Amino acid sequence: MRMIKESLRAQRIETPSWAYGNSGTRFKVFAQRGVPRDPYEKIADAAQVHAFTGVAPTVALHIPWDKVDDYADLASHAAGLGVGIGAINSNVFQDDDYKLGSVTHPDPKVRAKALAHLLECVDIMDATGSDTLKLWFSDGTNYPGQDDIRARQDRLAEALAAVYERLGDDQRFLLEYKLFEPAFYMTDLPDWGTAYAHCVKLGPKAQVVVDTGHHAPGTNIEFIVAFLLREGKLGGFDFNSRFYADDDLMVGAADPFQLFRIMYEVIGGGGFTERTAFMLDQCHNIEPKIAGQIRSVMNVQEATAKALLVDREALAAAQRAGDVLGANAVLMDAYNTDVRPLLAELREESGLAPDPMAAYAKSGYFEKIAADRVGGAQAGWGA
Amino acid sequence: MRMIKESLRAQRIETPSWAYGNSGTRFKVFAQRGVPRDPYEKIADAAQVHAFTGVAPTVALHIPWDKVDDYADLASHAAGLGVGIGAINSNVFQDDDYKLGSVTHPDPKVRAKALAHLLECVDIMDATGSDTLKLWFSDGTNYPGQDDIRARQDRLAEALAAVYERLGDDQRFLLEYKLFEPAFYMTDLPDWGTAYAHCVKLGPKAQVVVDTGHHAPGTNIEFIVAFLLREGKLGGFDFNSRFYADDDLMVGAADPFQLFRIMYEVIGGGGFTERTAFMLDQCHNIEPKIAGQIRSVMNVQEATAKALLVDREALAAAQRAGDVLGANAVLMDAYNTDVRPLLAELREESGLAPDPMAAYAKSGYFEKIAADRVGGAQAGWGA
Amino acid sequence: MRMIKESLRAQRIETPSWAYGNSGTRFKVFAQRGVPRDPYEKIADAAQVHAFTGVAPTVALHIPWDKVDDYADLASHAAGLGVGIGAINSNVFQDDDYKLGSVTHPDPKVRAKALAHLLECVDIMDATGSDTLKLWFSDGTNYPGQDDIRARQDRLAEALAAVYERLGDDQRFLLEYKLFEPAFYMTDLPDWGTAYAHCVKLGPKAQVVVDTGHHAPGTNIEFIVAFLLREGKLGGFDFNSRFYADDDLMVGAADPFQLFRIMYEVIGGGGFTERTAFMLDQCHNIEPKIAGQIRSVMNVQEATAKALLVDREALAAAQRAGDVLGANAVLMDAYNTDVRPLLAELREESGLAPDPMAAYAKSGYFEKIAADRVGGAQAGWGA
Amino acid sequence: MRMIKESLRAQRIETPSWAYGNSGTRFKVFAQRGVPRDPYEKIADAAQVHAFTGVAPTVALHIPWDKVDDYADLASHAAGLGVGIGAINSNVFQDDDYKLGSVTHPDPKVRAKALAHLLECVDIMDATGSDTLKLWFSDGTNYPGQDDIRARQDRLAEALAAVYERLGDDQRFLLEYKLFEPAFYMTDLPDWGTAYAHCVKLGPKAQVVVDTGHHAPGTNIEFIVAFLLREGKLGGFDFNSRFYADDDLMVGAADPFQLFRIMYEVIGGGGFTERTAFMLDQCHNIEPKIAGQIRSVMNVQEATAKALLVDREALAAAQRAGDVLGANAVLMDAYNTDVRPLLAELREESGLAPDPMAAYAKSGYFEKIAADRVGGAQAGWGA
Repeated sequence: MRMIKESLRAQRIETPSWAYGNSGTRFKVFAQRGVPRDPYEKIADAAQVHAFTGVAPTVALHIPWDKVDDYADLASHAAGLGVGIGAINSNVFQDDDYKLGSVTHPDPKVRAKALAHLLECVDIMDATGSDTLKLWFSDGTNYPGQDDIRARQDRLAEALAAVYERLGDDQRFLLEYKLFEPAFYMTDLPDWGTAYAHCVKLGPKAQVVVDTGHHAPGTNIEFIVAFLLREGKLGGFDFNSRFYADDDLMVGAADPFQLFRIMYEVIGGGGFTERTAFMLDQCHNIEPKIAGQIRSVMNVQEATAKALLVDREALAAAQRAGDVLGANAVLMDAYNTDVRPLLAELREESGLAPDPMAAYAKSGYFEKIAADRVGGAQAGWGA
Repeated sequence: MRMIKESLRAQRIETPSWAYGNSGTRFKVFAQRGVPRDPYEKIADAAQVHAFTGVAPTVALHIPWDKVDDYADLASHAAGLGVGIGAINSNVFQDDDYKLGSVTHPDPKVRAKALAHLLECVDIMDATGSDTLKLWFSDGTNYPGQDDIRARQDRLAEALAAVYERLGDDQRFLLEYKLFEPAFYMTDLPDWGTAYAHCVKLGPKAQVVVDTGHHAPGTNIEFIVAFLLREGKLGGFDFNSRFYADDDLMVGAADPFQLFRIMYEVIGGGGFTERTAFMLDQCHNIEPKIAGQIRSVMNVQEATAKALLVDREALAAAQRAGDVLGANAVLMDAYNTDVRPLLAELREESGLAPDPMAAYAKSGYFEKIAADRVGGAQAGWGA
Repeated sequence: MRMIKESLRAQRIETPSWAYGNSGTRFKVFAQRGVPRDPYEKIADAAQVHAFTGVAPTVALHIPWDKVDDYADLASHAAGLGVGIGAINSNVFQDDDYKLGSVTHPDPKVRAKALAHLLECVDIMDATGSDTLKLWFSDGTNYPGQDDIRARQDRLAEALAAVYERLGDDQRFLLEYKLFEPAFYMTDLPDWGTAYAHCVKLGPKAQVVVDTGHHAPGTNIEFIVAFLLREGKLGGFDFNSRFYADDDLMVGAADPFQLFRIMYEVIGGGGFTERTAFMLDQCHNIEPKIAGQIRSVMNVQEATAKALLVDREALAAAQRAGDVLGANAVLMDAYNTDVRPLLAELREESGLAPDPMAAYAKSGYFEKIAADRVGGAQAGWGA
Repeated sequence: MRMIKESLRAQRIETPSWAYGNSGTRFKVFAQRGVPRDPYEKIADAAQVHAFTGVAPTVALHIPWDKVDDYADLASHAAGLGVGIGAINSNVFQDDDYKLGSVTHPDPKVRAKALAHLLECVDIMDATGSDTLKLWFSDGTNYPGQDDIRARQDRLAEALAAVYERLGDDQRFLLEYKLFEPAFYMTDLPDWGTAYAHCVKLGPKAQVVVDTGHHAPGTNIEFIVAFLLREGKLGGFDFNSRFYADDDLMVGAADPFQLFRIMYEVIGGGGFTERTAFMLDQCHNIEPKIAGQIRSVMNVQEATAKALLVDREALAAAQRAGDVLGANAVLMDAYNTDVRPLLAELREESGLAPDPMAAYAKSGYFEKIAADRVGGAQAGWGA
């Protein structure tokens, strides 16, 4: 139990700056009160999540949404609030030029523009001290025949190689895949296999990031996690949850058992280290943002705690014996355990309130920002 | 063949006003040149689709996107361009009040507001002479426990009854269902069974509308069509196509064989009449709008022509004989036929150009609107 | 808590005779030791499940797999072992005549044969005192055009009416639906809507049974449960679990959170009564049968206990307030509770061992049947 | 057109010996008349498919279903009928020892037995002159925790390496993947990425085979085809079609447009050569076997002909221009063409009947085997 607590204490979960801004569906973005107007306010909100959970010390930036003139100043603002800058996320999907793709676009001029943005993101990594670049491409096609699948792979490979080349010694990029949306016939990086194949060719500084909402129905995500860890190619997670498509609900909300199974494979596969980025990537369309992030962090903690509780020796013995029910029971014993008291105790030992949700609610922070942040343009996906 | 031609000549496909405006995904709406700024311009574009295909004589309106001061004037504008006003589509999903639902919202004040809008839509039907109200609700929940599933059904039933009561003798409403999006845990009308059950209780003026993109993976849509026709409850279609979710691609683009099978059931089930509304409901996110609508209309025509070509006597004989391969072959013979020459001939007999896509491209209409429609706010889902 | 315990004490879960026989996939049926050779031995095994759990007092029969000369004798054998006969399950899918369907077959002779079997099942209900007939049809087609969808509905309706007519005053039938398998293009009862529509027309003695493995990916099963309860048409469950298709794994094994949500709706919708049949329908392909049934019964108990623990007043208050995170938290509080101590206590109060799995393992029953049941033909799906 | 005809003339499609035997679902295997009793009769039936289509000159064997004492004799029997032996298919899923896996089984003794079988298959390749070994593993688990995902990968890698080592200079193996069934929680080779990763490590004699029915819903199969061809890792196809899961229907029956898109990528990616094995792998559960194979071969031919008809220059120009509708139209023009006259002409030029289905029906072959093959055990998956 001491080792379990130590592991839980060492856990790090990164929250994304864009979770604090407005988000929605194509049908409607419902604005919320108190939403940040700039990166500084987003980081202030992220700092609240860390203040109440103790395990969310970094915040990911999204460029250009989080563009500032002086990144050193932004980093120092963050440090002053007790958090740091995490991964840099590129955006090559919101310019009119990218209607038919970015790095895979048939027009070399558009590809050059997209690549320039990706390289600029590495500049920002240098400026902020971030060691991780996250690459998600909305590239794909809506109609059969619209573009050449293979030619787009060639263009993708070329761009990835150029970015890889630009990375510093202690930098890496995480390559994201997604089955569909916003492209609806074919995406250029639809599955882990495609991302993996590109990363293997590039080298150790290219790794795969698993967004838990980006798979086809029925996909066994923990298998992918175990496989990528075996290959040394799991760079991290974009955590969220889903019932249907890329719903971007709070992680653990739709299928807490799946989250537990994922964390179980992470731990068993040696992935519970600093080299694996545990990041949230969610849309709080209807629930409050900061509270939604706190709940999400807690959900990951609870799944982790349960995964740490698995009696791996008993499990291995049952597996060796071919005892199907026995092995399953060992796993389920851990899952069925109520770990909330353990986590409350852990927080109190660290000087935190045992119930982060209640403590945050009582803090008055939300009321304050709702009152203060009046006027100006609220941050959202488009800004 | 004469009867097939007559059937094709009698076919009516309704285009939606919103297809001519901008649309996109939650990630980005790519603006296009020449997009209408108001309902009058939308109707002008819809008139083009009819001018070149000859089978799209009505255009559906969406309220409030197509709100005007004088609907009689709008109708007369349409008539002057050779088209008429079709179904009225309500919108209870884009007001901030509807964040947690409209007619199923826990707060009676929000429900009253939503109902008032629905009744206003019937007023507009009266004003425009439209006989069909299309009801789509984005209502649902994102998280288990968020609201009470059953209570929401009660509220839904209450609102539907009030709208039903308000309908005139020659008016009806079509109730739409959708598996998910924008709600991600539960929608209040997730499937045809739910819509059907409500409609049966209400009476003959309530019918189900099948949006071909609103089903779970693997759903056999033509079965639903055949079943609803058997029950007298098929009110019409919102046509589009999909590979994954509610992709809203051009109808027939993703699975032309499925569209053929649907039209085959429509014809066999007695649904190929004026009482069935064949409507398009699509998003031309990356392709030009008017041309996209023309192509879609043609895709429906081709599927219909093939379905009409099925040798139903030979098919019935093979079915009676339990000849699996033979029966399937009769159906496939029709599907594998190239019906484009037949449709070209039909168009020429009606004084139309044989190739609507080419004729529209040559007409210079797009160049004209692209040049003329400069300034003003382009129409889109939000306006 | 007293009321929760009383509810749990009153719970009844029916096990199926065929779960004790061999089962498998189309690739292989792995025979197990100790498998029953006849209905008497199956019932003996079912009695073990009841002996250790205290909540499984009935066993469902499958005709003709469980055909015996003297049903009164079989019933008295069951009574002697402390259990009773539950639902009668018909089988119109394993005769060569049924290759293209049973009650929907194009050939009236085959339909007549199928109907005769269904009526015979009602005779067996009379003979055994069973009040419930479960109707599952494998009817459907593999290829588009193979048979006429609508004509098959007519034939289905005719057969159902004839069976309905034959039912005694205190008898009912439960109509099952299934998306696919063994038919792969279209099934004649693919979804709850179809089953519901038929049952509504027939009357109160026809109800829908929900097999938790028979839905399209992404289907919200608890919505269906809530809806059917609202309509008075939920007859019961065939419990099992799945990751992909109709996997027939142990209930609660694949998605315990879903099972909890289902039981939550059952309780809230007034379905936690004797009129709702809670039946297991599973395949223990690789795990031992009796232990697999015990584990499954326990999984249902645990989900039920958690569902009973939901603080419905607090939940309703949060729902009324539109508090998304708060409402979800109330539900999750119950789900995250470890109810195993409560159930252990309950069992001890009823004179049972607190851990049924351990107690069964220690009982030596399996070793005994493995030694005794040598020779003879093991029961399976084919016999 | 001359080149298109030449390509079609050069096409080779392999039929599987097991398609001529009985097959079914877990619910029922419906026996058919005239079904072969041994490998010699299966090959005789396969020879009929070649006789009427002219493009099916080889037949795949399945070991042990097609075990004979003298493979040279079997090969000479085939040669005498105008066909040859194709790929050798291994079977490590039908022995009781394989209940929990074969090459990934926790018990080294079972693994050794499975590996011995695989090596024996290479012996049979040597004896028959076959150059292709097809490896499909049913290995996987039904319950979370049942076995260790990563350890199973280690065992799999070890077995594959041993088989690879044993291959002769002109031999290769094709590694098959499958999402699920008969394992229902996790399969050890669930997707192309897993198969690809293993094959890359082994070397050029290991390639991936794409079974068109083995993917998650929504998977874009032609993307996988294009990607594997770009990597030189596409070994071939197991053709069939599906609406839901691994339905094993006739190829092209469920989604003919998808089959066309696949063949389009094959041709464009340089895969239309002898090194790509185009194999059928289907279950004719309810339709006649030989006729079902002929129809399937024709479906592949028609899709190929359409794919060859695509005006690739016009398509590339439209793609370069970013003309979404234009590019899609070029592809659809080819798909919408009725290629049956072209194929009929081609057959007549080759001295074949223009309509293979009609010619086979008229030949009297089926009536002959139905009369002759009485007594003996019909071949099926179990024998």
